[in-house]
Amino acid sequence: MFLKNAWYCGGWQTDLSLAKDALLTRKIADEFIVFYRKADGNVVALEDRCCHRQAPLSLGRKEGDNLRCMYHGWKFDSTGLCVEIPGQQEVRNKACVRSFPVVVKNDWIWVWMGDPAIADESLICDSVGPSHPEWDLRTKQVRVNTNYRLEIANLTDLSHVAWVHANSFGGTTAYVDIRPKHTLGERGLHTEFWLRNVPAPEFARHLFPPEARFDFHFDVNVTVPCNFILSFKVFTSSSASEGASEGELILNTFSSQAVTPRDEDEVDYYYSWGATKHSTVPGLVELLIEANEVAFLEDKRMLEGQYERIKHKSDVNPQHYAHDLGPVKMLRLLDTLLAKEQDDEQKNCQE
Amino acid sequence: MFLKNAWYCGGWQTDLSLAKDALLTRKIADEFIVFYRKADGNVVALEDRCCHRQAPLSLGRKEGDNLRCMYHGWKFDSTGLCVEIPGQQEVRNKACVRSFPVVVKNDWIWVWMGDPAIADESLICDSVGPSHPEWDLRTKQVRVNTNYRLEIANLTDLSHVAWVHANSFGGTTAYVDIRPKHTLGERGLHTEFWLRNVPAPEFARHLFPPEARFDFHFDVNVTVPCNFILSFKVFTSSSASEGASEGELILNTFSSQAVTPRDEDEVDYYYSWGATKHSTVPGLVELLIEANEVAFLEDKRMLEGQYERIKHKSDVNPQHYAHDLGPVKMLRLLDTLLAKEQDDEQKNCQE
Amino acid sequence: MFLKNAWYCGGWQTDLSLAKDALLTRKIADEFIVFYRKADGNVVALEDRCCHRQAPLSLGRKEGDNLRCMYHGWKFDSTGLCVEIPGQQEVRNKACVRSFPVVVKNDWIWVWMGDPAIADESLICDSVGPSHPEWDLRTKQVRVNTNYRLEIANLTDLSHVAWVHANSFGGTTAYVDIRPKHTLGERGLHTEFWLRNVPAPEFARHLFPPEARFDFHFDVNVTVPCNFILSFKVFTSSSASEGASEGELILNTFSSQAVTPRDEDEVDYYYSWGATKHSTVPGLVELLIEANEVAFLEDKRMLEGQYERIKHKSDVNPQHYAHDLGPVKMLRLLDTLLAKEQDDEQKNCQE
Repeated sequence: MFLKNAWYCGGWQTDLSLAKDALLTRKIADEFIVFYRKADGNVVALEDRCCHRQAPLSLGRKEGDNLRCMYHGWKFDSTGLCVEIPGQQEVRNKACVRSFPVVVKNDWIWVWMGDPAIADESLICDSVGPSHPEWDLRTKQVRVNTNYRLEIANLTDLSHVAWVHANSFGGTTAYVDIRPKHTLGERGLHTEFWLRNVPAPEFARHLFPPEARFDFHFDVNVTVPCNFILSFKVFTSSSASEGASEGELILNTFSSQAVTPRDEDEVDYYYSWGATKHSTVPGLVELLIEANEVAFLEDKRMLEGQYERIKHKSDVNPQHYAHDLGPVKMLRLLDTLLAKEQDDEQKNCQE
Repeated sequence: MFLKNAWYCGGWQTDLSLAKDALLTRKIADEFIVFYRKADGNVVALEDRCCHRQAPLSLGRKEGDNLRCMYHGWKFDSTGLCVEIPGQQEVRNKACVRSFPVVVKNDWIWVWMGDPAIADESLICDSVGPSHPEWDLRTKQVRVNTNYRLEIANLTDLSHVAWVHANSFGGTTAYVDIRPKHTLGERGLHTEFWLRNVPAPEFARHLFPPEARFDFHFDVNVTVPCNFILSFKVFTSSSASEGASEGELILNTFSSQAVTPRDEDEVDYYYSWGATKHSTVPGLVELLIEANEVAFLEDKRMLEGQYERIKHKSDVNPQHYAHDLGPVKMLRLLDTLLAKEQDDEQKNCQE
Repeated sequence: MFLKNAWYCGGWQTDLSLAKDALLTRKIADEFIVFYRKADGNVVALEDRCCHRQAPLSLGRKEGDNLRCMYHGWKFDSTGLCVEIPGQQEVRNKACVRSFPVVVKNDWIWVWMGDPAIADESLICDSVGPSHPEWDLRTKQVRVNTNYRLEIANLTDLSHVAWVHANSFGGTTAYVDIRPKHTLGERGLHTEFWLRNVPAPEFARHLFPPEARFDFHFDVNVTVPCNFILSFKVFTSSSASEGASEGELILNTFSSQAVTPRDEDEVDYYYSWGATKHSTVPGLVELLIEANEVAFLEDKRMLEGQYERIKHKSDVNPQHYAHDLGPVKMLRLLDTLLAKEQDDEQKNCQE
């Protein structure tokens, strides 16, 4: 099940610029969608399915701000209205394809899958895009064969860094002892915690003396459906045992991660990672990017193995433990929003 | 659903000559069939499934006019009767595999999937085979992941040439304005139309001066299940606005296309294309063949995308328009024949 | 359906030694299982599914005799009991994964899929392992897309050698006339027969004069679920028409074949083949091994084609014949054991 009244990420702007024939096709929350850009730069999202015979519009042809289906030539404007049917004069009113509200924000393309009348831009998560002048951010994409709820569970319990990423981002079991401060919002979960006096992550350890210790600060906003916005700061270690570190900020990193469900069984994962420009440790940003690629494959392997087992036996009762707090809070919020949306739909039907 | 009392194409004769161990296996209308040739040259079609343990007879061994299953050695004659069971003296009467009437016509192998008693050769579509001495025809094969009804719809509305094949066979939107003359028969649809004063198709445009214009004549016979026999003639353009062109016939082409459903989700597409020998424009036949390969992949891509969307949402009501006339007529005919066949079966059961 | 109270082969010991991170994952009788070795050399088998969130333990880390899930760090001892949950003090009692009795015998790893209380080592089939000092045996593995019942039918009717393996192990239709002596036991079928005065098998024919003839002796033990233990002896041909050959034993071969169902649609096939060391015919063992690889692919191709057809039409009534005696006996025994197991389970539930 997917929230309809929510913004889903369709990828990076550059994905659209690089798309074949300037048409980008995606499956999002079990809908086929085609994106293209109008002359004014605005992005259009239409159902990727012609209303005539269901051919993919993404195999079509952009003609000005319109999109022509290249099976039988029906032409649609950017609102999805059919404006030409080759071989006949009239175009019936009901000939149209569904269009979706689209916003580009922080270099991400966002599409609203529900009622356009209540599409609210302010619900799009705040982030820092890869084109931001003060940040050196790189983007990647990965597809994972899992349900997006399992990605939510992954991203709201960062104790997994100690294990899944032991050889990349991890390198300390201090993650195990964190007690993150979780604050539930209307559409997401804010999580904050410190790791103090820990060694450098495994991937960067060789850059520092063996005895070097650091304070890490994590500030995470996870919002529905499954977006993960992370500020990760590294300080030289200090004696502070609560509150801000008294150490020197030596690395200020930022990661935007949008996990878009294609359907119940697959997600498209669009992420960026990087640091402020002129980072104090030369080469660290490059290392960070490389470590990321490894780390996302570590997650992919674990989550796909997990999902294979869950599909194989769906009736297993999982055990719980302390670090499930984040996943439980966030998934419960998602369930509440899903239930509310269904209630609202039912009421609308009865009216 | 498939018509049973109909001839289905099993491929070109040469496919059988080239088959491993001289045994050609096909899936046709959801049945596994093995073809082989007897000493007298006649082709045999048996169910590709031994009656002992359902092993593929196509992994068997031709022994004279018989076929031996190479799992346990049961031997069948060309009528499907079991004539030897190794290790025992008697062969019980009911040991047999189903055999199918087969006819080779115009170099195509045809198999009758229904009641052999009413297999009527005259129902096989008329065509010109690639071995015909007056024609220079080449053959190809392509598999498409779609239901054969969508292939029928594709082949009975050639306005799609303007769009799907814009960069190969098309090159003019004049296809949009044609009003083909459709004549419904008992087992198919005959379609005829002219395009007048149009440029050369995209793939051959460089052979002529830019201002060159032509008259095109299309004559198409589509028959159940999904066979498409095309005469396509090119004349120098004339002033005729109806009836035959007064121009000179410069290219006389012929295409045979048999689209055989493997099952509900896949078709095997056997086609030829070419022109009369000594065509007036040297090299045009070769170009035609090459353009064909491109065009069939253009169709494949479009139809597979379409089928993916149709399977994804089967309850979408398609919009209709003028050029649907051919598809509607032909699919309605198919449905009538299917319904009649089911009625007849039910009556036979009650008797 | 699978017998639970039975030993299933998880592969060769060396598979475990060579496994990544010393963790071997298998699917056996529709369960995911991870194997690893303790410091004392004993092999552990746990369900390959963490009780926390169903992540694969086979992506975990061996820590001494324990296994840590590398998703969130839960640690299990070799009995499957959870002994550490990172981030919390207490480990609840019910946190555990299923463990399975394991025995290594004749270099094969065996796992008991049913009630550990009644795991009886004496039920493991007798064999000769590839590390046996008097035998020169080589091991291989192949995966076949079929149901294991069809493998049972394959292995209990060796008349198929005449046909499936006509170009490798066969080379005589004498197999057709054998009347094997089948003796049904509690958990399997013992089969014995002679072939007399036959040419060398196809793969070894060039090693002997054309007129050379041999006596073959087959002694086979097939046990549930699907293990095939073969002694195959070659003698120079003699005049004996019953009882032991009076010829000279020139090749004494042994083959162990364990066919482990992964699920209803796939088997993992672990086999060895070879001969006594110092075989009288130099090079024959090497030839035997090579012929085997061919022969197992011959079977794979036939059984996969057969299974494709059986899945396609499950309601076909197979014909029977004399050589079905072995398959019928063995499959009936399997069915009896399956029914008994289900009865026992039901009784246990009612108590």
